[in-house]
Amino acid sequence: MTAPALRAAIFDVFGTVVDWREGVAAVARATFAAKGLDADPHAFADAWRAEYQPAMQTVRSGARGYVPLDELHFENLGRVLARLGLADAFTEAEKWALNAAWEQLHPWRDSVPGIAAIRRQMIVAPCSNGSIALMTRLARFGGLPWDCILGADVARAYKPDALAYRRSVAALRLSPAEVVMVAAHNGDLAAARAEGLRTAFVARPAEHGPGQTSDLAPAADWDFVAPDMVTLAGLLTG
Amino acid sequence: MTAPALRAAIFDVFGTVVDWREGVAAVARATFAAKGLDADPHAFADAWRAEYQPAMQTVRSGARGYVPLDELHFENLGRVLARLGLADAFTEAEKWALNAAWEQLHPWRDSVPGIAAIRRQMIVAPCSNGSIALMTRLARFGGLPWDCILGADVARAYKPDALAYRRSVAALRLSPAEVVMVAAHNGDLAAARAEGLRTAFVARPAEHGPGQTSDLAPAADWDFVAPDMVTLAGLLTG
Repeated sequence: MTAPALRAAIFDVFGTVVDWREGVAAVARATFAAKGLDADPHAFADAWRAEYQPAMQTVRSGARGYVPLDELHFENLGRVLARLGLADAFTEAEKWALNAAWEQLHPWRDSVPGIAAIRRQMIVAPCSNGSIALMTRLARFGGLPWDCILGADVARAYKPDALAYRRSVAALRLSPAEVVMVAAHNGDLAAARAEGLRTAFVARPAEHGPGQTSDLAPAADWDFVAPDMVTLAGLLTG
Repeated sequence: MTAPALRAAIFDVFGTVVDWREGVAAVARATFAAKGLDADPHAFADAWRAEYQPAMQTVRSGARGYVPLDELHFENLGRVLARLGLADAFTEAEKWALNAAWEQLHPWRDSVPGIAAIRRQMIVAPCSNGSIALMTRLARFGGLPWDCILGADVARAYKPDALAYRRSVAALRLSPAEVVMVAAHNGDLAAARAEGLRTAFVARPAEHGPGQTSDLAPAADWDFVAPDMVTLAGLLTG
C-alpha cells in the first residue's frame, strides 16, 4: 500500500518559519531604549519565551479553558517585567504594544521561497499555537503566503495536544496521511505522527541563539528531513 | 466622535465575490454530459442553491449541531438529484466530485483586483458560510488573496446568526467598528450592522441570472455603496 498523495503542508511557526528570538529582542531593544531602560533584549526574549510552555500547560491540563496565545503572552509579559523590576515602567497600552512584538518576527530567509514553492503543489497553512489574529498579522509582516490559518484557535487546543493536529486536519477535510507537519521541533513531529500525519524536520540551530543544545538533529526517522524550506519543497513536490 | 480606522474588511463570498450560479452550472453541465443525462444545468444550480438557507436554518435554530457547509451541500445534492429522478445515476464518489463544484466558482472580474487593493491597507478575509476547507480551495481556484479565513467554521454558526459576525471579529482581536462587512445582500449587512460592524454594499445584479429581483440596490444607508470591488477599494482606502 502506497501512501496517499500529500494535499497539505502545515507548519509550526515560532522557530520553524520565523526567528522569534531576534524579532522579540529587536522590538524589546527599541522599547527599552525609548524608555531609557537598561535591560538585555535577548535575555528578555528568552525569559519571556520561557513562560510559554508553562502558560499553555494550564490550558492543556484543563486547569483553565482555552485562552488565545495573545492573552497568555500578555500575562507572561507582566510576570517577566515584574521579575526585572519593570512592572511600573509601562502603561497597559505600552505593554500591549510590546506584546505585539510576536507579530513582528522576520521569517528565516528560506521560509518564504520554500513555502511559496510548496504552495504551488498543495495547501499550506500554519499549525501554530498562535491565534488567528497573531498568525494573520505575522503573515502580513513577513509576507508568508498561507492559504488559510489553522492551529490553536481553530482547534481550541495547544500543541502537542492531539486535538490541535486532529482538528486542523479535519478543518481541511483531509485524512492525516494526506497532510505533512513541518517543524524544527522533534516533540511537535512526534505528536503529529501519533495522529497519523506525515512529518518533516527542518533544523533551526540558531532558534535559541548561540549555544543551542535542543533539536539540532532529527530524533526519529521522520518522513522528510531538510536543512531548509527550499530543500524541503524539492523533497515534498519532486 | 469619529469612527475608528478600518483594520479589516470581511466578505460574503457566494454571490458577492464569486459567481456561484455559472460556476455550479458549468461543473453540472460537464458532469451531466459525461453521463449522457438530460438536465438543465442552470435550473439544477438554482434548485441546489434553493436548499441552502433551509439546510442552514436547521443549524441556526438549534435543531442540529454545527455541521460544515460541505456536508449540507452534499445532503442537499442528494435531495435535488432525487427530485430529478437522478438519485441512482451517481456513485457516492461521483456525488462528492459534483459537490466540489462549490470549490470551482470563478470570481467576478473585479473581485481579485479589488480585494488585492483593499489588502494593501487592511486585513481581508472571507466571512462566509463556507467552511475553511471550502474557502481555502475556492481561494486557490480563483486566486483570492485572503489573509486568513473567517466565517462559519471559526464561529461554528451560520450567518445571519449574530455569532458568525461576533466571533469572526473576535478572532481578529478587533472591535466591530474597525471591521467592514462587504456583501451583495442587504440581509447580511443588516445583521452585521446590528453587531456594530461597518457595512459595504456591492451590487451583483447577475448573481441569480437574468431576471433577478432581489438585492438590486442598497436597502438601507450602508456606510459604503459601490458598483464593484475596485471602486469599493477606492472608497475604503481613499
